[in-house]
Formats: sequence, C-alpha cells, structure tokens
Amino acid sequence: MKVALIGGTGTFGRGMALRLAASNDVLIGSRDATKAMNRALELSRLSNHTIAGDSNAVVAGQCDAAILAVPETLDPGFLEEIARPLVGKLVISPIVPIGVIHGRFVHALAQGSAVETVASVLAESRVAAALHTIPAATLADSARRIDFDVLVCANSQEVYNECAKVIASMDGVRPLYAGTLSDARGIESLTPLILNVAKLNHLRNLSIKFVT
Amino acid sequence: MKVALIGGTGTFGRGMALRLAASNDVLIGSRDATKAMNRALELSRLSNHTIAGDSNAVVAGQCDAAILAVPETLDPGFLEEIARPLVGKLVISPIVPIGVIHGRFVHALAQGSAVETVASVLAESRVAAALHTIPAATLADSARRIDFDVLVCANSQEVYNECAKVIASMDGVRPLYAGTLSDARGIESLTPLILNVAKLNHLRNLSIKFVT
Repeated sequence: MKVALIGGTGTFGRGMALRLAASNDVLIGSRDATKAMNRALELSRLSNHTIAGDSNAVVAGQCDAAILAVPETLDPGFLEEIARPLVGKLVISPIVPIGVIHGRFVHALAQGSAVETVASVLAESRVAAALHTIPAATLADSARRIDFDVLVCANSQEVYNECAKVIASMDGVRPLYAGTLSDARGIESLTPLILNVAKLNHLRNLSIKFVT
Repeated sequence: MKVALIGGTGTFGRGMALRLAASNDVLIGSRDATKAMNRALELSRLSNHTIAGDSNAVVAGQCDAAILAVPETLDPGFLEEIARPLVGKLVISPIVPIGVIHGRFVHALAQGSAVETVASVLAESRVAAALHTIPAATLADSARRIDFDVLVCANSQEVYNECAKVIASMDGVRPLYAGTLSDARGIESLTPLILNVAKLNHLRNLSIKFVT
C-alpha cells in the first residue's frame, strides 16, 4: 500500500516511515518539498527501502492512505490544501491537541475531538483516529522492538479494517477497535493521561497495552 | 495493616480479600453482618489466613483503611452510615458509575467523578481513587498470577503513598500516581473505555498496563 506521511519530517514521521517501509511504499510529505526529499533519501538509506518525498499536496495525490503526522495544533487551512487529493482515501489522524491546566496535561479542546475536525474538513475522505499513544522517540528508534496497542476509532467496520491493516503492517503494534469518531475524544484523551502518569511517576516514553 | 472491604461480599471483594490477605488483616463488611461472617469464614479457609467479617459500620470502625467494594451506583445514604467510623482513615474508591449511550459504555455522571462525591460525604477521611480497571473475575481467581497497573488519584503525595502501599501489598499490581481527585474523572473513564474495547474486539476481562 502507498502510505503518505503528511508533515512527516518530524520524529513521529521518521518512526512511522521506518516501521511502515518493510511492507508499504512510504511517501514523506512536507510543506517544503526539498526538505521532504532530503528526509526521504536519508530514511531510504537507513531502512534499505525506497522512500519517496515531496510536498504534502503531491504525496496526498499519490498515496492510497495518508497519516497526518502533523503537530498537535491543527491548522484547518492546512487540511483544506490536501482535501482534494485525499478524496476517497483513508486518512488516519493521530492528532491530539494538548493543553496544560494547573500543571496537568489535558485535551485542549473544550469538547469534541481533533479527528472530528479533520473529518469535517476532509468530508470526502475515509477518516479514522489512531496512533495517539505511541511515543515518537521509541518509534523512531528503529532498532528497538516494540509491543504496543493502538486504539482505532472509525465510523464503519470497513474503515476500521483498512486502518487496522495499515497499523498491523508494522511489527509489534496491535490495532484494537474503540468506536466511532464520536467516541474519539476519550481515545485522544489517553495521551494527556499517559503524559501525566509519566511525569508524576518519573517514567519516560510510556504507552499502553490492554492485557488480561 | 487492617483493611476493610466495605460491601465486600461480591466478586471484586472476594478477589481483593484473597490477594490482600497474605500481608494484611482483611475485614469483610456487608449490610448483612451474618452474610459477611459466612463469606469471611469461606475466604479464611480458601486463603489460609484469618479473614474477619461483620457489618459495614463495624469493620469501618475496626480498620486502618477501607476499600469501597460497592456496586457502581453510589448511594450517599450508605456513605453517611460509615462516615463517622472512617474519620481520619484512608478510604479507597474503585467506584465507576457506568451508563450506556448508543450502545457504548460511558461514565454515567454528566461531570465530575464518583470519588469526588465520596470525598464530599467522607469529608474527614483521606480519600483516594484507585483499582477501577482490575477485572473482578480475574482478581477472584486467586490461582491466577496477575500483572496489572493501578492508577491512583489522591489530593496529596502522603495519601497517594498510603494508598500505593496497600495496593503494592498485592502481588502483581503496580500503583501509579495519576493526579488529584479533580483528575479522577479521566481515570474512572478508563473503565468504560476498556469495556468498549473488550466488547468491540471480542476480548474478555481486559485491564491495562503502562509500558515503554
């Protein structure tokens, strides 16, 4: 599958690229096409797989599925730029807007979720929320074996299945269905919760597993 | 430490009693003192430790710390009965009010948390929230080794430390500090989230671990 990492030149994008490259064609996107191409070249050498790079709009047009590897503060104008090339495609939002209140990390939106905003702008894409709780630093350390669960919200079983397939194509990550986009606030809120637990207990790069 | 399980004749109470008995004096409480005594006798034989049983008010008076092993629907009148004997003592609330909206489990309170209600009634106790995400059936299967994390909310490091000590006295359970009681809604909300993940993915008796 051709998977585009929109805004994929950061640490999270690096990790996703390295872990997806074994079984997908990875495309790195950036506002700055040259930056994306240079990063793609570097990651191609590192991963021994061909990774391409170009502007966000170009990779959005070339991919089958896109992951929004963008910072937590969402810029609707940015989404509008890529809405047309992403029509009909799977779009995965790992975005969590994070604020701080009284020294505690919180979901920064007063209500609703980042993915519902994404879905309202990318109204003709098949939007899922996932990958919120994977620590970027751990992901980007490609020598490191991982064993994480990834909760996925999607408005249909079909979109869930597509998203789960992309996620499960990475070693050591198990997708779990967690409801529709209207349930996503609770899923996105796990990230500030995990950050608080990490800070209060002097732990780093925490993620979660669902165990029996 | 003398630990009372208020309303402790159910499955969760049974599991807690069996797992606490190795390093604590466990007291089973119930509205019905005879029922509590019979259950205590049964669990004493099962655990090879002396477990006592009596009315909720009596065990509340005898204990150093109390765990509210009561059903998820909170009855303030019930709390008022045990408020006086619990003055100055550690009280642990694992209570999560759970509702169902559009087929999805949700935190049943419109705002705030069960533990904040508990703390407002037991205003002279040292109240912590914890133990929300341990599956009762797994806990009660005392032959079963467990490996779970338990998030704890408490309004001071001192109350957290006391609560963590009780929790860590059980094999296979790691306490983690998760904030004050005003952060507890997010912690209590993990239970409906876990129930949804279990249901949607055909898994049973799920709990969580924080992993790196």
